Amino acid sequence: MNNKITSREEDFAKWYTDVIQSARLCRYSAVKGFVILEENGYAIWENVQKRLDEMFKACGHKNVYLPMLIPESLLKKEAELIEGFAPEVAWVTHGGDKKLEDRLCVRPTSETLFCEYYKDVTKSYKDLPKLCNQWCSVVRWEKETRPFLRTREFLWQEGHTIHETAKEAEEETLRMLNIYKRLCEEYLAIPVLSGRKTEKEKFAGAEYTLTLESLMQNGVTLQSATSHYFGDKFARAYDVKFLGRENKQEYPHQTSWGITTRIIGAIIMVHSDDRGLVLPPKIAPTQVSIINIDNKDENINSFSTKLQKMLSEKNITSEIDNSDKSAGFKFAESEVKGIPLRIEVGKRDLDKNIVVMVRRDNYEKIEVKTTDNIVEKVEELLSDIQKSLYEKALKNREDHTYTATTLDEMEKIISTRPGFIKAMWCGNKECEEKIKEVKGIKSRLIPFEEEHVADKCVACGKEAKHQVVWGIQY
Amino acid sequence: MNNKITSREEDFAKWYTDVIQSARLCRYSAVKGFVILEENGYAIWENVQKRLDEMFKACGHKNVYLPMLIPESLLKKEAELIEGFAPEVAWVTHGGDKKLEDRLCVRPTSETLFCEYYKDVTKSYKDLPKLCNQWCSVVRWEKETRPFLRTREFLWQEGHTIHETAKEAEEETLRMLNIYKRLCEEYLAIPVLSGRKTEKEKFAGAEYTLTLESLMQNGVTLQSATSHYFGDKFARAYDVKFLGRENKQEYPHQTSWGITTRIIGAIIMVHSDDRGLVLPPKIAPTQVSIINIDNKDENINSFSTKLQKMLSEKNITSEIDNSDKSAGFKFAESEVKGIPLRIEVGKRDLDKNIVVMVRRDNYEKIEVKTTDNIVEKVEELLSDIQKSLYEKALKNREDHTYTATTLDEMEKIISTRPGFIKAMWCGNKECEEKIKEVKGIKSRLIPFEEEHVADKCVACGKEAKHQVVWGIQY
Repeated sequence: MNNKITSREEDFAKWYTDVIQSARLCRYSAVKGFVILEENGYAIWENVQKRLDEMFKACGHKNVYLPMLIPESLLKKEAELIEGFAPEVAWVTHGGDKKLEDRLCVRPTSETLFCEYYKDVTKSYKDLPKLCNQWCSVVRWEKETRPFLRTREFLWQEGHTIHETAKEAEEETLRMLNIYKRLCEEYLAIPVLSGRKTEKEKFAGAEYTLTLESLMQNGVTLQSATSHYFGDKFARAYDVKFLGRENKQEYPHQTSWGITTRIIGAIIMVHSDDRGLVLPPKIAPTQVSIINIDNKDENINSFSTKLQKMLSEKNITSEIDNSDKSAGFKFAESEVKGIPLRIEVGKRDLDKNIVVMVRRDNYEKIEVKTTDNIVEKVEELLSDIQKSLYEKALKNREDHTYTATTLDEMEKIISTRPGFIKAMWCGNKECEEKIKEVKGIKSRLIPFEEEHVADKCVACGKEAKHQVVWGIQY
Repeated sequence: MNNKITSREEDFAKWYTDVIQSARLCRYSAVKGFVILEENGYAIWENVQKRLDEMFKACGHKNVYLPMLIPESLLKKEAELIEGFAPEVAWVTHGGDKKLEDRLCVRPTSETLFCEYYKDVTKSYKDLPKLCNQWCSVVRWEKETRPFLRTREFLWQEGHTIHETAKEAEEETLRMLNIYKRLCEEYLAIPVLSGRKTEKEKFAGAEYTLTLESLMQNGVTLQSATSHYFGDKFARAYDVKFLGRENKQEYPHQTSWGITTRIIGAIIMVHSDDRGLVLPPKIAPTQVSIINIDNKDENINSFSTKLQKMLSEKNITSEIDNSDKSAGFKFAESEVKGIPLRIEVGKRDLDKNIVVMVRRDNYEKIEVKTTDNIVEKVEELLSDIQKSLYEKALKNREDHTYTATTLDEMEKIISTRPGFIKAMWCGNKECEEKIKEVKGIKSRLIPFEEEHVADKCVACGKEAKHQVVWGIQY
């Protein structure tokens, strides 16, 4: 709590790690590139899990758990997958004192094992679809790491489904993207663009990848969730078949989709400010901090305890700070932790039958009569904070969404104030690579609803095929 | 569902794996010694998690997540721990293409990393206690594996706490054992003995280990949960210190405690029968199966749907089987899966305003008038099934708890009908080893309330120090 937080203006990257450290969300561990998710960070993940798990189950998905280690021989069956992941997996070569014949990698993703599993349990079209999900951690041997955004181990969920027809699998791919969209927009207050990745940026081995992209306060974009359609490629590679309606062996069509703890990085960088973390009420582990100005006062104490009970009855989570620290210190602590609403309970105020509520998002102070329905007022404010955070984030995105028709324009945007850039593209990988040379700009997605912002490709001047959204990325 | 289940009488081990396979709880994977937790098995674990997590949080424990890989150099700091675990860990030697300088083991347990973490975040006695818990998977390179009971990877939770005083840490050790006891007895309907492990059987590095032991239907015992007190041993090895009340640096006192997916093995072997899985209602993912005798009948259909809705309002989980399979097949399927109560909805019965309920535990059939309060009847039956399962398990344990004063008696018991054996012990490891030569009998625990069943040690005839409970184990 003695940590001074660097301002966003001064150094955004330093601000980001300062916020994480002050709020005790996570910290580096004794293992290089691996972090510890501390209680405040893990509690956010638990809430993300809870919301998503409910939505998955409502669509009929079931959770399972597959091994964390994958034999090299199995991984090699799908050529693109091994190519994509081999350089960044951790290899287990010894079990106890013995060297293993077939070395095992710590899962970077589990398509291969799900294929093996589905192969075993799928006989007929009557067994389809199979809708499985797994909550687990994966390891990818990244060279550069950054808390939440890129670490050698991270937590995620990976859904894997197989279907009788391509149509059903494609519908599933989109349906799951929309569930992530709902999570981001309704719960995390993060507006997202949705669309399809280019061939260059899609998942290794997928037919295509759908993605959600969000914009941080500094104009850097973040891939927030992805959903992949595999066609029957993996099924063929792993020999997953079923007896179809025509009494013939057929290959099922497959999807996978995931979201990771990196979404916590997005929550931080979309909402927080120079005083520390700002959390949307619907995902905040603690929604209200009740601060006793004087920790010895009996009236204050009993009022706070009663208030907490009333809030809890309406499923509003709160904590009472009754420590002997100064009021100012307690306010700052509650701000640093991103608690959406603080209620200050003081002696003089109580004598006048009021408490002061302070919004974390805009510091607005509201005097509330204790004779009024306080809980209703809290519900109203929390709901308004949730809405305001979304609107503020949306405005930031709109203010920093640009259109460009030349590479010079793109360069200027990124150098001045980056954001999403709409520009046309001919469809060639070479042009994507050329654009990447401009300050590392990458294609983020081809939107589901393309706009015609020009006739020609921004890079080569040839006829444009797609409108693409571009940006620099985490 | 074409699987015939071997009877317990004929071959208990085969029966166990048949039950698991028929109920689709788990299966072996492509990775030797590793299993896949299928949806029915994982759903039981999710319920165990939910119950425990609520109890942990009510005591003030917070969840965190630490890295899955531990550097060898760090592991080596506590001599007993590395000795205990080194022969059975998986070693990561390469990250991507590069050989690691310090190889990493996949965590077999996380005391070492928690010590490193606590060292970083503990400054003063005001920071204590630290009460953390972690839900994760661990790897131990077992030679012989058996679904749920012993697999190379398993899911568990591991609680790790540090305290200002030895007294507080010892209280915590016992408190957490009692939480597991509550889980086992109240939710899983498994009666447990509680007590302390002998020096020989305690956890590597602990001052002492508290344990819960349960008895399977075949008289084999199962260690069901453990809680360890470490004193300040780990704190000294890993240099975890805090500034005490007397303004001096002190070492904190530590505990750890865990329960694993092996408890699902206990649920199976304590309750199930020759027709398949039997689950206690409080832990069953689906509590009621509603079986439509005729899947084309409109009345049946609408009745079942209405019933399911009514049950759901009382938080009773149910599934409707409206498939075109035969009624007998559907009944058997519901039995194999261990669903505690089945409700048969048939045309002729509905015409007479009745449905038939069948208990999974004792096959009792109950005709219930549809004009009565059906939901209340279901609640009553589920509650009675829960109680009956516990009582039946307790009776099995009581019927197979013996007293012995000689090794011959012990051998006879194990050869005839095994169970828990109460016998006196002098306190020497040599005698424990001598007893182990008798059909592999091991000490299970020294009960908190010892009985004086004889004066002399059952093995050497010297003066007895303790009454010990012995048995053969999984």
